[in-house]
Amino acid sequence: MDIKPVVVIDGIFVIVVGLLALAPGLVDALANNPDARGFFLTAGIAFALGGAMVLSAWTGGIDLDVRQGFLLTASSWVLMAVLAALPFMLGSLHASYTDAFFETMSGLTTTGSTVFSGLDHMPPGILLWRSMLQWIGGIGIIVTAVAMLPFLRVGGMQLFRMESSDKSDKVLPRAGQIAGGILAVYIGLTVLCAVVYDFTAMTTFEAINHAMTTVSTGGFSTSDGSIGHFRSPAIEWEAAFFMFLGALPFVLYVRALHGHWRDLLVDSQVRAFSVVLVAVSGALTAWLVVVDHFSVVEALRLAVFNVVSVVTTTGYATSDYTTWGSFAIVTFFFITFVGGCTGSTSGGIKIFRFEIMALIIRRQVHAMQFRHAKFLTRYAGRVLSNDVMGAISIFVFQFAFLVAILTVLLSLTGLDMTTSFTGAATAMANVGPGLGTLIGPAGNFATLPDAAKWILSAGMLVGRLEIVTVLVLFVPAFWKS
Amino acid sequence: MDIKPVVVIDGIFVIVVGLLALAPGLVDALANNPDARGFFLTAGIAFALGGAMVLSAWTGGIDLDVRQGFLLTASSWVLMAVLAALPFMLGSLHASYTDAFFETMSGLTTTGSTVFSGLDHMPPGILLWRSMLQWIGGIGIIVTAVAMLPFLRVGGMQLFRMESSDKSDKVLPRAGQIAGGILAVYIGLTVLCAVVYDFTAMTTFEAINHAMTTVSTGGFSTSDGSIGHFRSPAIEWEAAFFMFLGALPFVLYVRALHGHWRDLLVDSQVRAFSVVLVAVSGALTAWLVVVDHFSVVEALRLAVFNVVSVVTTTGYATSDYTTWGSFAIVTFFFITFVGGCTGSTSGGIKIFRFEIMALIIRRQVHAMQFRHAKFLTRYAGRVLSNDVMGAISIFVFQFAFLVAILTVLLSLTGLDMTTSFTGAATAMANVGPGLGTLIGPAGNFATLPDAAKWILSAGMLVGRLEIVTVLVLFVPAFWKS
Repeated sequence: MDIKPVVVIDGIFVIVVGLLALAPGLVDALANNPDARGFFLTAGIAFALGGAMVLSAWTGGIDLDVRQGFLLTASSWVLMAVLAALPFMLGSLHASYTDAFFETMSGLTTTGSTVFSGLDHMPPGILLWRSMLQWIGGIGIIVTAVAMLPFLRVGGMQLFRMESSDKSDKVLPRAGQIAGGILAVYIGLTVLCAVVYDFTAMTTFEAINHAMTTVSTGGFSTSDGSIGHFRSPAIEWEAAFFMFLGALPFVLYVRALHGHWRDLLVDSQVRAFSVVLVAVSGALTAWLVVVDHFSVVEALRLAVFNVVSVVTTTGYATSDYTTWGSFAIVTFFFITFVGGCTGSTSGGIKIFRFEIMALIIRRQVHAMQFRHAKFLTRYAGRVLSNDVMGAISIFVFQFAFLVAILTVLLSLTGLDMTTSFTGAATAMANVGPGLGTLIGPAGNFATLPDAAKWILSAGMLVGRLEIVTVLVLFVPAFWKS
Repeated sequence: MDIKPVVVIDGIFVIVVGLLALAPGLVDALANNPDARGFFLTAGIAFALGGAMVLSAWTGGIDLDVRQGFLLTASSWVLMAVLAALPFMLGSLHASYTDAFFETMSGLTTTGSTVFSGLDHMPPGILLWRSMLQWIGGIGIIVTAVAMLPFLRVGGMQLFRMESSDKSDKVLPRAGQIAGGILAVYIGLTVLCAVVYDFTAMTTFEAINHAMTTVSTGGFSTSDGSIGHFRSPAIEWEAAFFMFLGALPFVLYVRALHGHWRDLLVDSQVRAFSVVLVAVSGALTAWLVVVDHFSVVEALRLAVFNVVSVVTTTGYATSDYTTWGSFAIVTFFFITFVGGCTGSTSGGIKIFRFEIMALIIRRQVHAMQFRHAKFLTRYAGRVLSNDVMGAISIFVFQFAFLVAILTVLLSLTGLDMTTSFTGAATAMANVGPGLGTLIGPAGNFATLPDAAKWILSAGMLVGRLEIVTVLVLFVPAFWKS
């Protein structure tokens, strides 16, 4: 395999990390904060390393085949995390590299689990950097999911190949084209969210940070109290609304801007996703009213905010839902796995896979009765091939199996069953909080053993990149020509 | 659909339940125990009901199509449970119908969860009846899995269609033929197990009961202390050995008796199953020695016995493994799902499905690299069709999804998350014990709310019959001609 094109593009990503680090550096410099040094140092390292990578491997044109696509996808996320972790070590936080890497991976994968506490008194540059990591990770995963994964045929994503890309094995030109429109929408939504927050109950700095971590369904906050810090029902409804928007397929926004509004309303994923949110929030509201004696208005807000926060895999918290009783705890555990729509910033197994599993089951029941008939199964107007259906079933199995493996590994570090299991699930699904006193919505990942932090970091990456993208690199045959 | 053949065969099963009830009736009568009345009453009801069913629906010949096959499979298990529960109510136990039905379903599905305590002082007839339920259930599921499910193409079981039945849609003659050989082996193994137990540390009555619940991988005991009651390392090793034998494909024993010993040794399921047992027992032994400071000999015995007990879905206990630390708890939770070989008495997802999922993943990785090549995937010498691979992937998804649904329903009855989740899992996988103080290996299902007992009973049945067999009856289209 010719890794030169991969090195060149990875080098460009590294330089981008350096450029981005200048922003919090300037903020901290203006605030006369010594952390500025760490950001500028990181930028310098990034420019040197990225420049060296680009110059050493540049051969003129760049194009990628499938294997190079896999390598690029996995290596670029790891490399960016490795570098973007530096400011947490080099600045006044003096974080260990384990903590810095965990926080960065949690940021870039839009997971939102944090090892830092005392956020309310942290240097503004550090807070901004955390939010920016999620924001970059968010747009990164949308573009990866729209332009790269369908081309790599990962986890049934070939279902979402663009018509125009079907005949071509060239990925880069198309990726650039798609990325432009999506980036514009992404920026637009973030600005809108920031303005709304700013006009409600946040300072401008808080509004900008939370807008970045809301639209990216990331979940980092500038306060240890997360969204609960603001004690503002209005903020909670606004956050729920923008988290919801962040979990819809971004290509549909681009189409909407081109006048195809209807596509957004009739899209199968959007509808199924809305049904799930309404059903789960409704059941939980009823539970909160009947069992926990909340008023209907408060119950509805608590249920909608927290359900949207977990299903969109954002992970903001306003209250400790683990005190709401058994049904609530069980519900929050299982919706960890659901996830939003593909082509959005959210993680998890994702709605379209559940839809297609349901279609496959329906087909199977039909086939049992009418044994000699042949059935075509359609999704969103396309006939589902055996390849796609197989890949999706396998994805769900792999997801569950990896959660089990990570749980066992975490238990070996001494963590109890609840922490191990929900920690593995929340990392793989890029949600954020788990259950239990340590890593629950009121907890923090700081006290976990170092080994557990590395295991969870790996889980976040593997979950974010839809599993196979990472695992394929560990197959010896992948490296043979 | 013509339900007459189904009614006739169900009627025969009902009569069989009546005949079987005579045995504990006689035992109790000889022991001068008033419970005898309950058994004879049950037998009378069964003869009347079963006789009426056979006579009213008899039309001469009997043969089944696929839909009748589904209806027969599900209805016969439910009907037998409904009737076989009566002795627990009519005798000196005066159990509620909920408890009686739960215990019976737990018996027939070879789950082994019990709502009764004070077993050590129970009338011998009742104890014998519990053991007999598991023993009947065990042979019932082997014959169902070998002769009926492949014909119904449930959960990828079509993979195990006999060559000679491939061309025929007639199921009954073949079923009878297969059942004969298997029944002989089943009786032989049970007698052998009873003799071994009898010569070690059990009374003849205990030996007979435990032999029936060991070979059927059921797990009921004549003592609240289960196998731990005997405080005999020898008994534990023997039980582990016969549970292992009960979890192997019984057709292979029949083939071995015809001189094809090698088939048993080279069978893919048997090998994978053995590897799983050795790997998990080995890891757990190491954990027990290093972390819990057991001697190697004791650690090995504890690990092997308990791992075999759970993976074979027997559910015997000798000690409360939930006190062994996080890794042990997590391990016992996940191996609940594994199960033994198909065509045995064990439940769970079953080894061959994991093997085939692994094959599918390998194929997928190959297909990613060599995009335009076509691959044939083989298992046990047969090419896997897309149908089979799809059915198996779907089965695993359905299994996980139903465990989630049952967990949510159980949480609504007020049970905590651990009890709800592990209760749902242990019922669906037909294992027996869950985790937590209520239903853990040292607990008992007696204190659960009635609603939870019905939910778990449903889970045991659905899990036992490989899910689709039951669910298809709830599809309206199934009932239309």
